[in-house]
Amino acid sequence: MNWQPKRYSHLTIHDQIVDWVKSRIERGDWTVGTKLPTQRQLAAEFNVNRSTVQLALDELKADGLIESHVGSGVFVANNSWNMLLDKAQLNWNQHIESSIYKPNYHTIQLINEHEQMDHIIRLGTGELSPDMLPTKQIEQSLREISLKPKAMGYSSPQGSEKLREILCEYLKNKGIETGPENILIVSGALQALQLIAMGLLEKESIVFQEQPSYLNSVHPFQSAGMRMNSISRDADFTKNLRKFKRKRQSVFYCVPSLHNPTGQSWSMKEKKSVYNVCKELQIPIIEDDVYHELTFETPAPPIKSIDTSGQVLYIGSVSKTLSPGLRIGWVVAPSPVIERLGDIKMQTDYGSSAFSQEIVAHWISSGLYETHLIKLREQLKSRAEFVEAILERDFKRTATWEKSEGGFYIWLRFHEPIVNKALFLNLLHHNVLINPGYIYETRDLHHIRLSYAYATLDDLAKGLKILLELVESQRGRD
Amino acid sequence: MNWQPKRYSHLTIHDQIVDWVKSRIERGDWTVGTKLPTQRQLAAEFNVNRSTVQLALDELKADGLIESHVGSGVFVANNSWNMLLDKAQLNWNQHIESSIYKPNYHTIQLINEHEQMDHIIRLGTGELSPDMLPTKQIEQSLREISLKPKAMGYSSPQGSEKLREILCEYLKNKGIETGPENILIVSGALQALQLIAMGLLEKESIVFQEQPSYLNSVHPFQSAGMRMNSISRDADFTKNLRKFKRKRQSVFYCVPSLHNPTGQSWSMKEKKSVYNVCKELQIPIIEDDVYHELTFETPAPPIKSIDTSGQVLYIGSVSKTLSPGLRIGWVVAPSPVIERLGDIKMQTDYGSSAFSQEIVAHWISSGLYETHLIKLREQLKSRAEFVEAILERDFKRTATWEKSEGGFYIWLRFHEPIVNKALFLNLLHHNVLINPGYIYETRDLHHIRLSYAYATLDDLAKGLKILLELVESQRGRD
Repeated sequence: MNWQPKRYSHLTIHDQIVDWVKSRIERGDWTVGTKLPTQRQLAAEFNVNRSTVQLALDELKADGLIESHVGSGVFVANNSWNMLLDKAQLNWNQHIESSIYKPNYHTIQLINEHEQMDHIIRLGTGELSPDMLPTKQIEQSLREISLKPKAMGYSSPQGSEKLREILCEYLKNKGIETGPENILIVSGALQALQLIAMGLLEKESIVFQEQPSYLNSVHPFQSAGMRMNSISRDADFTKNLRKFKRKRQSVFYCVPSLHNPTGQSWSMKEKKSVYNVCKELQIPIIEDDVYHELTFETPAPPIKSIDTSGQVLYIGSVSKTLSPGLRIGWVVAPSPVIERLGDIKMQTDYGSSAFSQEIVAHWISSGLYETHLIKLREQLKSRAEFVEAILERDFKRTATWEKSEGGFYIWLRFHEPIVNKALFLNLLHHNVLINPGYIYETRDLHHIRLSYAYATLDDLAKGLKILLELVESQRGRD
Repeated sequence: MNWQPKRYSHLTIHDQIVDWVKSRIERGDWTVGTKLPTQRQLAAEFNVNRSTVQLALDELKADGLIESHVGSGVFVANNSWNMLLDKAQLNWNQHIESSIYKPNYHTIQLINEHEQMDHIIRLGTGELSPDMLPTKQIEQSLREISLKPKAMGYSSPQGSEKLREILCEYLKNKGIETGPENILIVSGALQALQLIAMGLLEKESIVFQEQPSYLNSVHPFQSAGMRMNSISRDADFTKNLRKFKRKRQSVFYCVPSLHNPTGQSWSMKEKKSVYNVCKELQIPIIEDDVYHELTFETPAPPIKSIDTSGQVLYIGSVSKTLSPGLRIGWVVAPSPVIERLGDIKMQTDYGSSAFSQEIVAHWISSGLYETHLIKLREQLKSRAEFVEAILERDFKRTATWEKSEGGFYIWLRFHEPIVNKALFLNLLHHNVLINPGYIYETRDLHHIRLSYAYATLDDLAKGLKILLELVESQRGRD
C-alpha cells in the first residue's frame, strides 16, 4: 500500500490511520463493500502495533464508515460515502455479483493470494522452484536477442511465424508432423482452453473429463456454459461416452502424460484405444500435454502423433519447463480450428507478448532448451526421491501414494477422509499451503496434490512435518 | 507452409503437389471445409507457375477431394476423407458455426490478414510505423534488465508490484492519485474491456457509446451478450441516458482524449459534465485513454482525475506509444473491481508476460519513456502535417476533415456515401488497405479512418493517390 504513518507528526499514529482510511474511501479506492486487510496485515504494512490499528478501526466503526461481518472480516459500510460526503457512491459489489463469470472457488482464491507471501511453505504449488528456473541464462540470452521492428508491432493472429516454424521442428521429436499454419501461439495452456470454449463449442456442450481433473480447479468451460461430465477409462468407457453424448456436441479433455493432479501417464496402448473410441464416436480430444517433457524415463508419444483424423487439439507450453512468467504455449490443430481460435484471440488480447515469443524461439532453436530440460529432469527426480523418502518414513501408517514417474506431483491419499477445508485453513494458519484434493474433485476428502517442485528441501521437510502433526491431531479429535 | 516440390524427382512437379495436398488432408491438417490458399499464393509458396498449380488442383477436383465454391474459393470437399481412407472425419466447421463467440467481421478479418503482407500500403493501421518504434533502444535496455527468479514465476493476480508502484508515480502526472492495490496489469486495453465485460456486467446490460465507436470494430461486450446503445453528447444526453438506462445495469464507454476513430478530444468542461451526469445516474464510466500521451499540445487531464466516487474505470496502455508487441496495459479502479478483474484474469491466462512487465517498468522508471514520447509526438506531428498537405492539395473537392490534435488518425469524410465494401475490396485489389468508417458505425458510408502513423511517407502519398483515383472513378460510374 506504500503508505506508513509518520513518526513525527502533530497527529497521533491512530489519527493518521483513520485519516488515511477515510481518504481511500473518499477518493473511491475503497468503495462500499470493500473488504479491508486484516488487523495483522495492516499492522505489518504500517509497521505499528496491532492495538494501534484496532483503535483506529474502532473509531472508524463508531463513525459508521466500516463494519464487521462476523466470520468474514471488516468491510466498508453501506453508508460510508453518505457519512463522508453525503453523496451516493456506486456499489460495485452489486455489479460483480450479477455479472457473467464465476469467481474462483474460495480455496483457490486463498491459494492465489497466499502464493504471493514469502513466509508461506507451499506444499502444492504447480510451479518450478525459483532456483530451478534458468534465470541467469535467460538474462544472458536477452543480451543475445536482436529485435526486428516488425516483431515489436501487433502480431499476426497465429503468433510469430519464426516461433511456429521452430515449433514444427521441435514437435517432430514427439512424433508430431505439422506445419506452421497448424499452430497457434497462446498465452499459456489455460488461454488455449478458454479459446476452445469460446470458439469451438456450443452452449451446453458436454466436456468429458477424468476424475480428478485440473479443469475443476480452473473453469474455462463451466464459465462458458458447458456441462462437465466425469468419466472413467474402465470397461464401460465407450458405452458411457456413447450414452452421455446423445445428441449434444461433446469433447474429451485429458492429460495423458503426467496427469494433473495424479501424476499418472497412459501407456501407448491406452492412448491408441481412447483415440480410436473418440474417432469412432466423433468426439474431439483436447490433449493437454504441458508436462510431457518432464517424464523421468522415455515418455510414450502424445495421442496427437497418431491422429490422422484432425480429431486431436494438442496443447503444449513452456510454463512448467522454462518459465511461467513467459506466458507462452501453443495449440496444434487442423487449419479451420487454428484460424478460428486465432480470430478469437485477436478479439481477446491481440496476440501474446512478442518479447516472450522471441525468448522462447531463441531457447528452443539454440538447443538451450533441450540442455536445460536434461538438467531439470535430474533435479526434479532427486526432489521426488527426497519427498518419497520422507513419506516412506512418516506417512506409511496414514496414507498411500505411487512413486513419481516425472513432473511435479505426488497424489497423496490419506486412508481417512480428513482433507477438508478445515484442514486447509488450519494448515494455512500454520503457514503451510496445500492443494487439497477437493479442488480437483469436489467430493474428494482423501487426497492432497503434493508438489515436490516448488518449496526448498528444508521447507518440504518442515511442511510435511506440520502436515503430519495436524493430520494426526485431527484424527485424534475425530 | 515450408514445403516446396523437388526439382529433381521421379515425380512431376504437379504430382508432388497433388500428393502433398492429399497428405495434408490425410493427416487431418486440412479437414473438411478448409479453404485452400489461392492459386496465386500456392504458386508463390511452391515457387512454381500458376499453370502447374492449376493442373494439380484440377486433378484433385476430379478426384472429388476438393471443390470450388463460386466466388469464395476452393475448399476441401465434404467427402474428401471418404475418398482417401473411407473413414469419417470430424467436421470442425460445424463446431465453429454453433459456438459461442462471434467471428470478427469479414472486413476486419481481411484487415488482420492483409496487415501481415509486406507489399500492402496500410492507410488505416492504428499502429506506429516500425521506424518510430524504439527497437534499438529496447534491445539495448534488454541488456540492462536484471531478472529476479521470483519475477519469472506465475504472477500475482494484479501483476508485477514493481510495475504497479511505478505506474502510481507515473499517473500522478495526469492528476490521478492511486495506490498499487488499485491497479491491474492487463495484456493491452482490449483485454481490459474483455475482463470488464465478463466480470462486472450482467447479461443484457446496456453499454452506451458514442458513434462512431472503436467498440464496433472489436466486440468484447457484444460477444458477452451486452446491448450496445449509441448516444450523442448533445442537449438530450442526460435525458437519453436516463431513458435507455431504465432498470438495467449500464456503463458508458468513451475515449475522451484523441477519440478512435475520429481523433477528437473533449475539453475539461465536457469531461466534468459527463462525469457529473453519470455520477448522478450511477452509470460507471469506462475511460479508454490509450492515446492521451500523444496529444500535440498539453492535454486536459483524464476524467479519472476528478473521480471521487469510484465511478471511473480508467484504461491505459503502452501499445500506441512504445510497442504493441509488449501487450501491456493497465486498469485503475476501486479495490473490489480490481480484485474481481484480477481473479478473472487468473482464470483466463494466469497474468501477463513477466518479461514485458519488466521492460515497461524499466522504461517508465528510467525516464526513457518520457524522452521517447517527446520525440514521438514531434514525429507524429510532422507526419500529420505531411498528410494534411496532400489532403489540402487533392481532396478538398471530395472530402472534409479536421486538423489533427494528436494521435494517429484523421477522420476523412467524403461528401458522398462512397465508402462501401466494394471500394474497400477495390483498393485492396490495388494493394491499398483502408479502415472504412462502416467498421466503426455500420451505416456510415462517408468516412475513412486515415492513419498517418504507420505507412512510410512515400506509401502515404502513393496510397492517397490511388484512393483519390478510385474514388473519382467510382463517382464517375455512379
